[in-house]
Amino acid sequence: MTPKPVFDAHFREELAELMRWRRDVRRFRTDPVPEPLLDSLFDLAQIAPSVGNSQPWRFIRVESPGKRAEIRRNFEVCNAEAMAAQSSERAGVYARLKLAGLDAAPVQLAVFCDHATEQGLGLGMRTMPEMLDYSVVGMIAGLWLAARAAGLGLGWVSILDPARVCAALDAPKSYKFIAFLCLGWPEEEHVDPELVRYGWQDRTEEGRRIVTV
Amino acid sequence: MTPKPVFDAHFREELAELMRWRRDVRRFRTDPVPEPLLDSLFDLAQIAPSVGNSQPWRFIRVESPGKRAEIRRNFEVCNAEAMAAQSSERAGVYARLKLAGLDAAPVQLAVFCDHATEQGLGLGMRTMPEMLDYSVVGMIAGLWLAARAAGLGLGWVSILDPARVCAALDAPKSYKFIAFLCLGWPEEEHVDPELVRYGWQDRTEEGRRIVTV
Repeated sequence: MTPKPVFDAHFREELAELMRWRRDVRRFRTDPVPEPLLDSLFDLAQIAPSVGNSQPWRFIRVESPGKRAEIRRNFEVCNAEAMAAQSSERAGVYARLKLAGLDAAPVQLAVFCDHATEQGLGLGMRTMPEMLDYSVVGMIAGLWLAARAAGLGLGWVSILDPARVCAALDAPKSYKFIAFLCLGWPEEEHVDPELVRYGWQDRTEEGRRIVTV
Repeated sequence: MTPKPVFDAHFREELAELMRWRRDVRRFRTDPVPEPLLDSLFDLAQIAPSVGNSQPWRFIRVESPGKRAEIRRNFEVCNAEAMAAQSSERAGVYARLKLAGLDAAPVQLAVFCDHATEQGLGLGMRTMPEMLDYSVVGMIAGLWLAARAAGLGLGWVSILDPARVCAALDAPKSYKFIAFLCLGWPEEEHVDPELVRYGWQDRTEEGRRIVTV
């Protein structure tokens, strides 16, 4: 048994600081991310928790200009539909938000959950099959923190038609689309979310009220 | 604008160490977790990313012996069913696994996603309504790391019938059950997952092969 590490008060304060500064980033510089840094992030992603140790995450990295344009077009269509569905008093705020970094992010990743994987042998999924998808989401949450610790920004784009993403990227039939991630050096950094700063949705205390039974 | 923090190489190495040592813990000591420590973890949980800044996580803390017994019984029934569904060659391994810390964990939490919340105003959810649930999952991933940094173990129990959990805890109708979490001081610590150690599922490289298009 390796001796267990102790995480001291200083580290824990820095971890809290990291969590406070982890933002959904949509404004990127275009200069590249070094491949060894990306490799180290992908390596860390592998040790995320997963149901039954199923490790169901699959990545497709989108580099070709044609594929990137397809994803961007997908976003633009979905975002225009979302914009059209806003009430008149919200449409102005919605229009001011920048909701994706697809125009500039040097690294763009589609993340999937492989529903055909036999890894994990179904353990922990009998009553909650959604645990497989959740495992991929948890992995992304860790990647997000590790990226920010390296000075990178990550933005999760969900204003996309999943079926069209899968088709554009020729994803295997068993892949469920979970997330499209933009990754790169942020143009600016903030401790408050863009959606708070632009008046879309404040932080609230609702999730902090713990009911005890 | 607050000056942005810089996370140095030492912090990043410690963060990677934390991720390596973050385990799904099922073997707990019964001594209590100080309430101020729990409070600090719940505070940190609030700053997790969420779609549209919807902050849809809701917690029910289970303290009463009767409610705890109901959850434990729920697990035992579901686990017996899962055990019965194993092939003869896997049943022996399955039986040796300890899959929940419900017998001893001093803190037990049901975590839900409030599908009735108006927070976030639907932003980012039009084509992917599952983003609301994913936001709760991402919050748990951060809580997991923060708990481990404080020396606590966290175990995510999914071998439960969600409908029976909701009924047992009188959860509001709009709450979707996401996770049951056991939290406490671990009895033992390992850098390798229990499912690897007991021969259920090894780590693989499948999720590490990044396809580029």
